[in-house]
Amino acid sequence: MKYDKRIVRLLGMQTPVIQAPMAGGTTTPELVAAVSESGGLGSIGAGYLSPEAITSTIEQTRERTGRGFAVNLFVPGEPAEDAAAVERSNSRLDVFRADLGIERPAPPARYAPVFDDQFEAVVAAHVPVFSFTFGALQPVEVARLKEGGTVVIGTATTVDEAIALAAIDVDMIVAQGAEAGGHRGTFMHPAEQALIGTMALVPQIVDSVSVPVIASGGIMDGRGVAAALMLGAGAVQMGSAFVVCDESGAQPAHREALLAGPAARETVVTRAFSGKAARGIRNRFIDELAPVADQLPDYPIQNAWTKDVRAAAGAQGRAEYMSLWAGQAAALAVKRSAAQIVDSIRQHLDAL
Amino acid sequence: MKYDKRIVRLLGMQTPVIQAPMAGGTTTPELVAAVSESGGLGSIGAGYLSPEAITSTIEQTRERTGRGFAVNLFVPGEPAEDAAAVERSNSRLDVFRADLGIERPAPPARYAPVFDDQFEAVVAAHVPVFSFTFGALQPVEVARLKEGGTVVIGTATTVDEAIALAAIDVDMIVAQGAEAGGHRGTFMHPAEQALIGTMALVPQIVDSVSVPVIASGGIMDGRGVAAALMLGAGAVQMGSAFVVCDESGAQPAHREALLAGPAARETVVTRAFSGKAARGIRNRFIDELAPVADQLPDYPIQNAWTKDVRAAAGAQGRAEYMSLWAGQAAALAVKRSAAQIVDSIRQHLDAL
Repeated sequence: MKYDKRIVRLLGMQTPVIQAPMAGGTTTPELVAAVSESGGLGSIGAGYLSPEAITSTIEQTRERTGRGFAVNLFVPGEPAEDAAAVERSNSRLDVFRADLGIERPAPPARYAPVFDDQFEAVVAAHVPVFSFTFGALQPVEVARLKEGGTVVIGTATTVDEAIALAAIDVDMIVAQGAEAGGHRGTFMHPAEQALIGTMALVPQIVDSVSVPVIASGGIMDGRGVAAALMLGAGAVQMGSAFVVCDESGAQPAHREALLAGPAARETVVTRAFSGKAARGIRNRFIDELAPVADQLPDYPIQNAWTKDVRAAAGAQGRAEYMSLWAGQAAALAVKRSAAQIVDSIRQHLDAL
Repeated sequence: MKYDKRIVRLLGMQTPVIQAPMAGGTTTPELVAAVSESGGLGSIGAGYLSPEAITSTIEQTRERTGRGFAVNLFVPGEPAEDAAAVERSNSRLDVFRADLGIERPAPPARYAPVFDDQFEAVVAAHVPVFSFTFGALQPVEVARLKEGGTVVIGTATTVDEAIALAAIDVDMIVAQGAEAGGHRGTFMHPAEQALIGTMALVPQIVDSVSVPVIASGGIMDGRGVAAALMLGAGAVQMGSAFVVCDESGAQPAHREALLAGPAARETVVTRAFSGKAARGIRNRFIDELAPVADQLPDYPIQNAWTKDVRAAAGAQGRAEYMSLWAGQAAALAVKRSAAQIVDSIRQHLDAL
């Protein structure tokens, strides 16, 4: 079918599908390599990784594929330290901890890895593609990446954000529609005011910037990919579809939640897990923190304080306390290999 | 392009575009006839019309076109009478009334036309197509329409609603995505929990029912129509694009708001105007009622009490007090004739 081929040419893809960078262990080197080997583009979700882990994950990916792949980082904001908010959150988390048989941990030494150190690890590795979310890089950072031969992709949830990203000279922009699972990339508005559906967002961003656009949010199969290309996108980014695939590092209970059929349809946008708005399947964790949703610590403080609960819940298979990130079409997920996902999309597009 | 042709065949359309039934004066006989004459399907938004006005509007439409068209009604709910809620709302509306130079009116004799009488007017007119929203018809009502040769279309905002509509034997289902302007058709869930983007909603409904599906929400031009057809829809329903067209009966200030460029991008879902969730451009009316948004009278009580304010604001060109219904892609609106909208979509599809 006819569509904007700039992205597939620049990234050397055979199928215009980018596996979304899902931080927290989902994007194993096996997954990233399998997607790239099948003709899509795999992405390492490196937002929570130390610089050393970034370097080694890139090495492990390169051992598995000679093709391109992306690394994604979170551009940090300026969280407000608020001891009362931390205690308010922890008093509720303690109920979950008691149920899980764990104790409230000591305060974390740091809330998140140091971005500048993560960034240096990425620059040093000369990765083919770098994508970022939660904010905008400094123009000098974009320039350094591009000088090193790296293609740079920003993430926008509104037209204004896309225009701001184009102004710092990114090569491509992900248009993250409201349907998308996981964290919202919103950085210029309150996240609740930036929940624009993919169908509405993509053509408006395409009309507002000259760089090619990657559609994300609610895309699960060849139908969604074809639709996104019709809107003017040059590729799509898909998350939920890859969470359940064989090479994914997602917790078994997370995969099962997405494969549970109708129950996977009820997703909500919540700040409960991390302090930043993100879409996942509604569960007890979200509901119990809902009354204080507006009074929780900022990201990444809340994220650091909920880590022990999420980890214990994952280990014990307790889905009610896990962040079950999922897009609004996650119920369409099918268990298969990453290559089968990409192949089925290519076949769908070829038949049109 | 290849797509599900059942709808265009059944409705005798040349282009798979239905002009959305926008109640409140937008869907003039001129607009409805122009859309149908151009090869799409026009719809009379009759939800607020008396039975007599329904009959005469249908007659006026038939004088202008021999082609098919649709009539749309609101399936009534069971509003709770709440004097405190009415006073809470009116105390804020009185501030707007003072600014507009009008007095609080006497309580309305009725809040809305009697549905059964509206329905009888539609049945008696043997219209080619009947669509409904805000609920589900009784099975006997669907049967009566179909026996009279009328094609019946229900409106769903979730998979569960689509399954419920299929069970009462409708001929087609509109899948109303979260992007859509105007009232949400949600009838089985709190409206806030049924804001599913078009990209995610359409394929899930297509997979869940055997009747053909009409996509709506965020579709403004040939790109959106092509995308919807790729998702498995057999046609689209478009509202905002037709609000601004030459034959529209929308207030000038409403049209201007949609054509105002970036300002048209900030839409919100609000109960302020009618007591039922609806998407429109954010303005003073919405913001001032936001603090009591959860304590307003139900639809149609709130709708009846705000009618004088909306009417005076429209007459005076005061957009800050008007319901500026708009979808999330309304900023893509272009002023032209209804035929030009439909023709441009047909040309876009033909070129694919």
